[in-house]
Amino acid sequence: MVGATNQTLRPFLWRAGKLFPDREIVSRTAEGIKRYTYAEYEGRVAQLAGALEDAGIGDGDRVATFCWNHGRHFETYFGVPSMGAQLHTINPLLPDHHIQYIVENAEDRIIFVDPSLAPKLASAYDETSFASVDQFVVMASEVPDVDLEPVTDYESFIAEYPDEYDWPDLPEDQPAGMCYTSGTTGKPKGVEYSQQMLWAHTMATLPQAGLDIGADDVIMPVVPMFHVNAWGLPFSATAAGAKHVYPGPSPTPADLAKLIEDEGVTMTAGVPTVWLGLLEYLDENDADMSSLERIVIGGAAAPKSVIRRFDEEYDVEVVHAWGMTEMSPVGTVAHLKPGMEDELSTDEQYDKRGMQGLLVTGLEMRVVGDDGDEVPWNGEDFGELWVRGPWVTTEYFQRPDANETDFEGNWLKTGDVVTVDEDGYVKIVDRAKDVIKSGGEWISSVELENTIMAHDGVAEATVVGVPHERWQERPVAFIVPKKGVDQDELKSGVVDLVRSEFPKWWTPDEVVFIEEVPKTATGKFDKKVLREEYDDASLIEGKTPDEDAPAEN
Amino acid sequence: MVGATNQTLRPFLWRAGKLFPDREIVSRTAEGIKRYTYAEYEGRVAQLAGALEDAGIGDGDRVATFCWNHGRHFETYFGVPSMGAQLHTINPLLPDHHIQYIVENAEDRIIFVDPSLAPKLASAYDETSFASVDQFVVMASEVPDVDLEPVTDYESFIAEYPDEYDWPDLPEDQPAGMCYTSGTTGKPKGVEYSQQMLWAHTMATLPQAGLDIGADDVIMPVVPMFHVNAWGLPFSATAAGAKHVYPGPSPTPADLAKLIEDEGVTMTAGVPTVWLGLLEYLDENDADMSSLERIVIGGAAAPKSVIRRFDEEYDVEVVHAWGMTEMSPVGTVAHLKPGMEDELSTDEQYDKRGMQGLLVTGLEMRVVGDDGDEVPWNGEDFGELWVRGPWVTTEYFQRPDANETDFEGNWLKTGDVVTVDEDGYVKIVDRAKDVIKSGGEWISSVELENTIMAHDGVAEATVVGVPHERWQERPVAFIVPKKGVDQDELKSGVVDLVRSEFPKWWTPDEVVFIEEVPKTATGKFDKKVLREEYDDASLIEGKTPDEDAPAEN
Repeated sequence: MVGATNQTLRPFLWRAGKLFPDREIVSRTAEGIKRYTYAEYEGRVAQLAGALEDAGIGDGDRVATFCWNHGRHFETYFGVPSMGAQLHTINPLLPDHHIQYIVENAEDRIIFVDPSLAPKLASAYDETSFASVDQFVVMASEVPDVDLEPVTDYESFIAEYPDEYDWPDLPEDQPAGMCYTSGTTGKPKGVEYSQQMLWAHTMATLPQAGLDIGADDVIMPVVPMFHVNAWGLPFSATAAGAKHVYPGPSPTPADLAKLIEDEGVTMTAGVPTVWLGLLEYLDENDADMSSLERIVIGGAAAPKSVIRRFDEEYDVEVVHAWGMTEMSPVGTVAHLKPGMEDELSTDEQYDKRGMQGLLVTGLEMRVVGDDGDEVPWNGEDFGELWVRGPWVTTEYFQRPDANETDFEGNWLKTGDVVTVDEDGYVKIVDRAKDVIKSGGEWISSVELENTIMAHDGVAEATVVGVPHERWQERPVAFIVPKKGVDQDELKSGVVDLVRSEFPKWWTPDEVVFIEEVPKTATGKFDKKVLREEYDDASLIEGKTPDEDAPAEN
Repeated sequence: MVGATNQTLRPFLWRAGKLFPDREIVSRTAEGIKRYTYAEYEGRVAQLAGALEDAGIGDGDRVATFCWNHGRHFETYFGVPSMGAQLHTINPLLPDHHIQYIVENAEDRIIFVDPSLAPKLASAYDETSFASVDQFVVMASEVPDVDLEPVTDYESFIAEYPDEYDWPDLPEDQPAGMCYTSGTTGKPKGVEYSQQMLWAHTMATLPQAGLDIGADDVIMPVVPMFHVNAWGLPFSATAAGAKHVYPGPSPTPADLAKLIEDEGVTMTAGVPTVWLGLLEYLDENDADMSSLERIVIGGAAAPKSVIRRFDEEYDVEVVHAWGMTEMSPVGTVAHLKPGMEDELSTDEQYDKRGMQGLLVTGLEMRVVGDDGDEVPWNGEDFGELWVRGPWVTTEYFQRPDANETDFEGNWLKTGDVVTVDEDGYVKIVDRAKDVIKSGGEWISSVELENTIMAHDGVAEATVVGVPHERWQERPVAFIVPKKGVDQDELKSGVVDLVRSEFPKWWTPDEVVFIEEVPKTATGKFDKKVLREEYDDASLIEGKTPDEDAPAEN
């Protein structure tokens, strides 16, 4: 008594090709808009599978992509895993040495690469790291002048193969996908997705508790297809029989507005900066957004102003979601619960929508405090979010060190420190490594930063926990003042501001003025540098923490 | 690289209890309406699990129910499988000897029984068949006077156990559910559901392509909970955080109308006769149906008039679905595809909605003709529907004979003969055992019957294939004429009617007048009796089939 077939991507491809043969897949390319149907897509995916097989790709071989969002990239999404190989989507924005590490670690056999990204890949190329790579396939109809060998173009690669393929029955633990986390510290960690994980994640994104995707939808993933499978949207859209719109390389807000208008996009998805850019564009330009029903925002917290503006000015719902590479990636979605539209003010509704949201159907979570116990759901106490479920990984690829620290039984320790309110809404308050542990209680560095950065005299600020003999850690604020601001006034102003919003013991023990906040390669604050610099506690020597520090209460 | 946890029912219970603690579960009982919340439900389910464990129930033990639709029955849905046992829902409408066979075959350890059904169970009781049964638990707060031993009442059974339970990590192939098909011939066949099958089926019912269930829904399953888990709705509603409404024993149309009105039911589900009854009630009585958005109709084809009337008079969408016990059960749902609301006339839309519909996401199908090849999707050619997928079983419980005939590789041969139209909509035209195979082509006995029964002079009719030396089989019509009808006129009238609607070679070779169509225990036409009676071909001796029979064309 088990299901007649394993959970694989095959039935999604079958259903789209057979029941929605006329629905379209649209791509913005350097040569203009290209469109074809699921019926043609299904045939091309079969051709790709035939070509891969003929190229010696078999069970468990890794096939990589180094591409933007377009139809050919989407063909690899089904073609590679459904013939038994594993699709490894490489982030082309990584520094060369990370790309080298990733290709070598994954032992990729073939790399599909966009013409516009071929120079970047060529610059990362070195013989040792790329030793496993048999060939490069450029996503074009003829081979451009690239410095990669041996190389062919995609259309030639698939041309001679039939448009039907005898898709195998795959085991459900067959490796199907792979993505590396672009961690801010240390080497990227590989996360593998089995056929079953992708199946389960896809099924979980379709319902109302997920992203509510149906055949009527026209879905435009702006989130790159090398970021956790564009949050799974190409799979979800196919499973639903929806129309796909791929915005191609480096779309501008004008490009996105035009695609929404021309193709009748109902749902799109990406990080907050994309939508800030779109709002700015729409302030200055006319575009018909009437087809657009919702924008899925993830990757970082969506400003409440963005949620409000899309709602009030464009009647577009911002669907705030949270996830991780380790979770395929969707974990929470900030939908309102029954009755909230009537019971909450519009502003309170935006507050709910601005949180990371409710755990989707099929997962379980707990929030674990510093003492190892679960913290109460009161919107105030916080702890590290742990999750488990059928699309949550239990290990990193060849990383026993990380496996030791990041998992506990079948729980993934997400590294995100959160509160959960009485209604069950998760809100991220910090990363676990950045939270400040003071006297047995936790202080959110992120909340302090947000408050301090709201001060008129502050250009940039970050807050770091520095070691303290008595209190374990105490917060120190590093501030880049705006030009011409009086530092003494600024310091007392910042302290007053913090005290007005938080318990006194959250007040930073010291305010340090610096010229620039150190940043990582991807532009995030690099607190590690500051932590190392102030690791000897000399900074706060002789200080005593505020008199109402938690241990004394 | 596998999911962190197996696919089980546990996360559904967790999510409803933790994220929707205030949503209600409402039951119509002999003592009036009872209601409690998911928070209380979760506690009671934990109590039940503790009680079962204490009663010696462990991994894989079967626990049976013999109950109508109510909250306590719903408690067994999660309590039994989530603690590692297997929930076996017995159909109390079966004849005693079937109940005996089923209890003995399943080796049930405990039977939960409604007070109103206890006499029926007592009448079926015999020591040999019920040898495995340790005890009976009556679904009440005190033990009524029943002839079952040893017996306790449900509230006493669970009373002393804590409202928390340490739910185990179960393997995904752990047996979780069981249901016997009430076949019209032979012994009932047991179908088992693993944790994974129930998980996958639940996830497949939630999206728009399934039944589109969300937290805002108020779901009333009228389909009995002993019929394939009430089509899975108790699981689906919980997974979504929806409100449940259980109509209790033998609800009248007035009861259903009142529950819809009082509880704000948004979705309900049952066989066509229930909804015909509701329509008749509403013709004569006032009731507020404004909360009701959709009715899922399955179990038999919904008359187009029912679809039309609910739409036009009550703005309620009839969602026609098809499934089987072997499929957990949902297989197809007749949603309109993108654009159809604009492109098709209202009548054509009803035609689409009246078919069995489109295969839901996650399954695959083929339609196999008599020659073993797939038939084209043209709405005319027909063949047997085969399906496969993660919630389709691959075997019957201890029935190697049936396993031999009803499966082909990982395909379930459904026994339903269908057409598929150009849009992919499945329409059942006959049962495989009833289809008439004539000269290498198939004739639908059901379509002939429907046409013949539309004749004014016909009270009842059935069409059976009888053996034929040259054509393999030929159709013979058995007609119960209305009183006082001239038989010769009727015969030629029926033949003319059939010829006006079907190819000439579909015309029955003979029309036989009978006094009554033989029926099975459940009221279906028992064609087997007629087939046996006319098995010697004497009936059609000397006849030649119509000159344009298919083999000559």
